[in-house]
Amino acid sequence: MGDEFYLSLAIDKAWDCQLLTYPNPAVGAVILDENGQILSIANHQMSGFPHAELNATKEALEAKNSSLKELFATAKNANELYNLIIKNHQNLLKNSTYYVTLEPCAHQGKTPPCANLILAMGAKRVVIGSRDYGKHARGGADLLAQNGIEVKLDVCKARCDELLEPFLRWQSGNFTFFKIALSQNGVATGGVISNLASRTHTHHLRSLVDLMVIGGATVRIDRPTLDARLFSKKSPDILIYSSYANFDPKISLFNIPNREVIISNSLDLAFKKRFVMIEGGENFLRNLDSRVDWILIYRSNEFKSANNINLDMKVKILHRSTFGDGELLWCKRVDMGVNS
Amino acid sequence: MGDEFYLSLAIDKAWDCQLLTYPNPAVGAVILDENGQILSIANHQMSGFPHAELNATKEALEAKNSSLKELFATAKNANELYNLIIKNHQNLLKNSTYYVTLEPCAHQGKTPPCANLILAMGAKRVVIGSRDYGKHARGGADLLAQNGIEVKLDVCKARCDELLEPFLRWQSGNFTFFKIALSQNGVATGGVISNLASRTHTHHLRSLVDLMVIGGATVRIDRPTLDARLFSKKSPDILIYSSYANFDPKISLFNIPNREVIISNSLDLAFKKRFVMIEGGENFLRNLDSRVDWILIYRSNEFKSANNINLDMKVKILHRSTFGDGELLWCKRVDMGVNS
Ligand SMILES: [Zn+2]
Ligand SMILES: [Zn+2]
Repeated sequence: MGDEFYLSLAIDKAWDCQLLTYPNPAVGAVILDENGQILSIANHQMSGFPHAELNATKEALEAKNSSLKELFATAKNANELYNLIIKNHQNLLKNSTYYVTLEPCAHQGKTPPCANLILAMGAKRVVIGSRDYGKHARGGADLLAQNGIEVKLDVCKARCDELLEPFLRWQSGNFTFFKIALSQNGVATGGVISNLASRTHTHHLRSLVDLMVIGGATVRIDRPTLDARLFSKKSPDILIYSSYANFDPKISLFNIPNREVIISNSLDLAFKKRFVMIEGGENFLRNLDSRVDWILIYRSNEFKSANNINLDMKVKILHRSTFGDGELLWCKRVDMGVNS
Repeated sequence: MGDEFYLSLAIDKAWDCQLLTYPNPAVGAVILDENGQILSIANHQMSGFPHAELNATKEALEAKNSSLKELFATAKNANELYNLIIKNHQNLLKNSTYYVTLEPCAHQGKTPPCANLILAMGAKRVVIGSRDYGKHARGGADLLAQNGIEVKLDVCKARCDELLEPFLRWQSGNFTFFKIALSQNGVATGGVISNLASRTHTHHLRSLVDLMVIGGATVRIDRPTLDARLFSKKSPDILIYSSYANFDPKISLFNIPNREVIISNSLDLAFKKRFVMIEGGENFLRNLDSRVDWILIYRSNEFKSANNINLDMKVKILHRSTFGDGELLWCKRVDMGVNS
């Protein structure tokens, strides 16, 4: 199998934690041993946790020597894991190949540099999707090449760049996405049609975003809580997009501790935050601000006897994830600006 | 990676040719070399063409020795390919592992038995999804085990059995599926919203089925041709499901050479054929005969400003295929019988 096959495995794995790594990029990594056997497929899961390369290295070493599992399980954080690996790798990954969706970092951040880890393992080859254009992290590919590792860049570049887009956007100030749940036949009836897995994923996202936007009509009709209880106690701040400021203060969302609720007839504030989720319905989507072009569609496994959301829009499907008996479609508007 | 990972690759590959192998089963195969490197991922593509195991063996040998490509390309049919492989494999697949979604066949059919091929290659291990309960083909796993090969059965069994379902049904007399094209928001406006890739796939299916069923209203309104021109010159016979027999004879579907057109207010005839496709709309789906539970949904990448098909139905999504910028969902009704 060619490099694109293995990098595709890394890309799919990275998407499993897309957005959940905020403010870090979603990254996936695959390691083959010197004979070409897949040892590990791993990703970066969360800010402060090991980078994809470190997780993949840990799992690859454990695949070669299962007795290392117990040792690595004693690591209390990414730094400790890194150091345990450096001291105990027994050259098990000598002449291995690394596939990474993003150029390995070359700087000491919350975690030690991945490029140095790959060097320490004695890898023979590193295949990279997107280059890292960040000021601090770049240089990983050069460092590897200067140390005699065969480096191949820009494999599956377009798909790796898409994967990286939220990261690049929130680095440059703002990434805002629109989230909606739809039945198989396009009915959008709020949380009702999402299964537990997709509702938990939504709550996970709510716990991470800097602001959550919702339409005034939805607040009046659904009287939602908009917390993140299925994942975390941290509830997002809310912007209610509405021309009228009179809401029943007994609506649950107003009664969450440590939450700021803003009512505004403008979305401008949202685009000043770094990471923003809009939960809305038909009218919101129909008039979607041109600055929003990622749309997350949770699709249930049911047809519903009700009317669809009815609008014209073309999307590019970037990725599909399975959530319980339903799926999550990661979409990008391709007629950007037409409706706005 | 475990056996389920590799068998999943074989399952996905098999789905690429699901139904297109009629009257044979859709089968996928993956081969790892003695070091665990993936050498090939292949499937059975069409009746009369090589079985999945033969295709995978060919590709695996070519991966080990690319000079074999030229030789194998001279094979005019599956038998010749089989014989070329037997004579020229150079023990390159000694101690390999085969992953197959279905127990390898043990009988001489249109093609020689795959179990013997695997034995001849000197494989060490064979991992099998579904067992073959057919009268003629079964015995492959026993033959392998009796010859010292480590055989593991029933891996990913539920998914492999689902994959096999159309085959088992047309073996027992009839497999009928319903096909519909939908926009992202559930609008069904006939062929308009399907892209070329999905229309070609539909034409491929039309060229294979023993009968195609369509509703009378669709015939009157759309005046369709219902040929298979994007794939083949062979157009399917048609059953128009209608209480009224008066149709404009100038409607194109009536003017296809070598085609039988039946007009009936009963679907009973359809269930007497082995392989039947229903192309219909909202009313057809709403009142779907309980004998039909596979539904193929071609989903475009567009939201359309129109009403959805509006009905209650729960499905299990068996598989997703990408078709151009859209996708094909292979679904099974899970509330079978509720509507009928
Ligand atoms: Zn790193
Ligand atoms: Zn066979």
